[in-house]
Amino acid sequence: MEEDFNVTAYKVEGNVDYTALEKRFGIMPITEDMQSRITRLAGESHYLIRRKIYFAQRELSWLLDQYEKGNKFYVYTGIAPSGRMTVAHLIPFIMAQWLQEKFNADVYIQIPDEEKFLTKNDPNLTIENINKLAHEDAMDIVALGFKPGKTKIYIDTENATQIYKHAVRVSKKITYSTIKDAFGFSNETNIGAIFYTSLQAVGTFIKSAEENRKIPCLVPLGVDQDVHFRVARDVVEKLGYYKPAIIHSRFLPGLKGDPKMSSSKPEDAIYLSDSPETVVKKVNKAITGQQSTAELQKKHGGNPEKCSVCQYYKFLFEPDDKKLDAIFKAERSGSILAGEHKADLSMKINKFLENHRKNREKIENKMEDFMLK
Amino acid sequence: MEEDFNVTAYKVEGNVDYTALEKRFGIMPITEDMQSRITRLAGESHYLIRRKIYFAQRELSWLLDQYEKGNKFYVYTGIAPSGRMTVAHLIPFIMAQWLQEKFNADVYIQIPDEEKFLTKNDPNLTIENINKLAHEDAMDIVALGFKPGKTKIYIDTENATQIYKHAVRVSKKITYSTIKDAFGFSNETNIGAIFYTSLQAVGTFIKSAEENRKIPCLVPLGVDQDVHFRVARDVVEKLGYYKPAIIHSRFLPGLKGDPKMSSSKPEDAIYLSDSPETVVKKVNKAITGQQSTAELQKKHGGNPEKCSVCQYYKFLFEPDDKKLDAIFKAERSGSILAGEHKADLSMKINKFLENHRKNREKIENKMEDFMLK
Repeated sequence: MEEDFNVTAYKVEGNVDYTALEKRFGIMPITEDMQSRITRLAGESHYLIRRKIYFAQRELSWLLDQYEKGNKFYVYTGIAPSGRMTVAHLIPFIMAQWLQEKFNADVYIQIPDEEKFLTKNDPNLTIENINKLAHEDAMDIVALGFKPGKTKIYIDTENATQIYKHAVRVSKKITYSTIKDAFGFSNETNIGAIFYTSLQAVGTFIKSAEENRKIPCLVPLGVDQDVHFRVARDVVEKLGYYKPAIIHSRFLPGLKGDPKMSSSKPEDAIYLSDSPETVVKKVNKAITGQQSTAELQKKHGGNPEKCSVCQYYKFLFEPDDKKLDAIFKAERSGSILAGEHKADLSMKINKFLENHRKNREKIENKMEDFMLK
Repeated sequence: MEEDFNVTAYKVEGNVDYTALEKRFGIMPITEDMQSRITRLAGESHYLIRRKIYFAQRELSWLLDQYEKGNKFYVYTGIAPSGRMTVAHLIPFIMAQWLQEKFNADVYIQIPDEEKFLTKNDPNLTIENINKLAHEDAMDIVALGFKPGKTKIYIDTENATQIYKHAVRVSKKITYSTIKDAFGFSNETNIGAIFYTSLQAVGTFIKSAEENRKIPCLVPLGVDQDVHFRVARDVVEKLGYYKPAIIHSRFLPGLKGDPKMSSSKPEDAIYLSDSPETVVKKVNKAITGQQSTAELQKKHGGNPEKCSVCQYYKFLFEPDDKKLDAIFKAERSGSILAGEHKADLSMKINKFLENHRKNREKIENKMEDFMLK
């Protein structure tokens, strides 16, 4: 029997059954064959794909066919700020940066600084505040190693002239009925939130529109964002462009076990701006898959699938499969206790964040080279 | 009993009863007292106000109070292109130019090049085509004598960065329910058309937002556009700005007697681009208020209120009240016949158009000075 869970563009609840979700959304798994093709074409595999953190797709085979024929793709992804970026937010950008490097792909990144303003009722989420966050996010993204000239970040309110004209074309082909059903809107929903998906769709054809030719587009995204493209993909094709290919990622759980880490729950999330002490504190309070006492854990072992510490290694902090296996084994066998387990993770996270901040400092004054003109 | 007529943002049908319309829309007449105040403050009266072509208003007394206290207003109006401009389209701009001159008011002009794309199903009305028309319109508007530096024209798709961020704020405070009722939309209406009114509202506070202070705004518009501001005025106040003052004009009828001249009916409209021969041809086919034969007209006289020739003089081509009186009298008494009447009007229109084209040529290369930066 299906478990009770809910995944919309605005909320993730319950224990997400990803196989059931594929059926609900009409998306297909990333097969072993697709994985091998990507590895062959890239010259190496990526842990996010190997580990099925990117688990589902649309049009991926078609995209790879096109690539093999010499029809290169570009990558489109984004983030809608509502607080400082968490490590969970990095997942699509880690993927995008790798695709840029291995497939020499241009990357377009939308930072919609109106989206949370329109869809949340938080007095702190003014457009001005979100716009500041958008610039923070842009730096955090670029710090992952994106290339100048091949990376085009746009912030909706600042780049509206480049995107609104395209969004208008999308919007003409989407009725309120469609949006209402897809997003669970009511007649009391504001008209900005209703229109917004038109802007999110633009990235799937912006490069084609700019260059006036059809260019394949690959969108790595969290599976909760699929709804925007369920609505838009047919529309994009009607406008004369290729439907975007999409790869869908699972959610990094919250430290306390929420199904999706959320930047609006500080104790559940690791922010890129967290101090080393904060990281230690938060990780110490994380739930693990271990038994209630050290004795029981030593005897019976724990469950790495239910352990947020193990999941953080898997999603972000241990790209080496052999090392990850060792961590999972230790958890299962009971040979590692929660304290040590957490101390190791805190160290890894802090090392990552320290390195990230250094990279960020290097690009802070070079952001102009990464913004859409 | 009320006559059967219909005035929406998208259609005008039947014999418009302007008194009934005031009640429907909740707008108030421009009183003799208001007229006198405007005349006193401007140093002269304007025929469009004297003749009650601008017949109704919102907040006009308040606006004049503010002006007398030294709190100057700016003017906002616009045009949504769907074809070349007709002489009817000039009415709000003639008013705006006069207000600029007499009240030293800045004038903001919106040219929404997406509006007809979103609300009409005409394959010729692509955004590209409308955008070209928008630039033609901008020149026709400036040619009326607007001042550089005090006139800021914006074209939605080209100036989206300046206006979208403000429209987002408006849109958050308008629900689909409100829009649906106000504009007669259905669930099959596209989401761009639903959002659009947010952008039309921006002009009522754009100068206040740019300068970060509350500045009164006066909007001259055709009464069919009032609906946008019925929806937006409370919203604008909630955003911390003044509600706009509005003055509403009657419709210049079509040459063939349609209640509103429409640029989509070539035979019913005089375009600013019409050749002298075309003007003569069209005016010759216009309906007049005269009797069916010259003999009957000489005996009984005609009705200037039902005569499009007389109305064209009244709305646009005879600002001198004495001369207009003489024209109306001649029509009533039967002392002028249709042929002569029409020949006179054609001559006046052609003189106007010739002069307009000359003025336009002078500013064609100076348009940069009139565009919003």
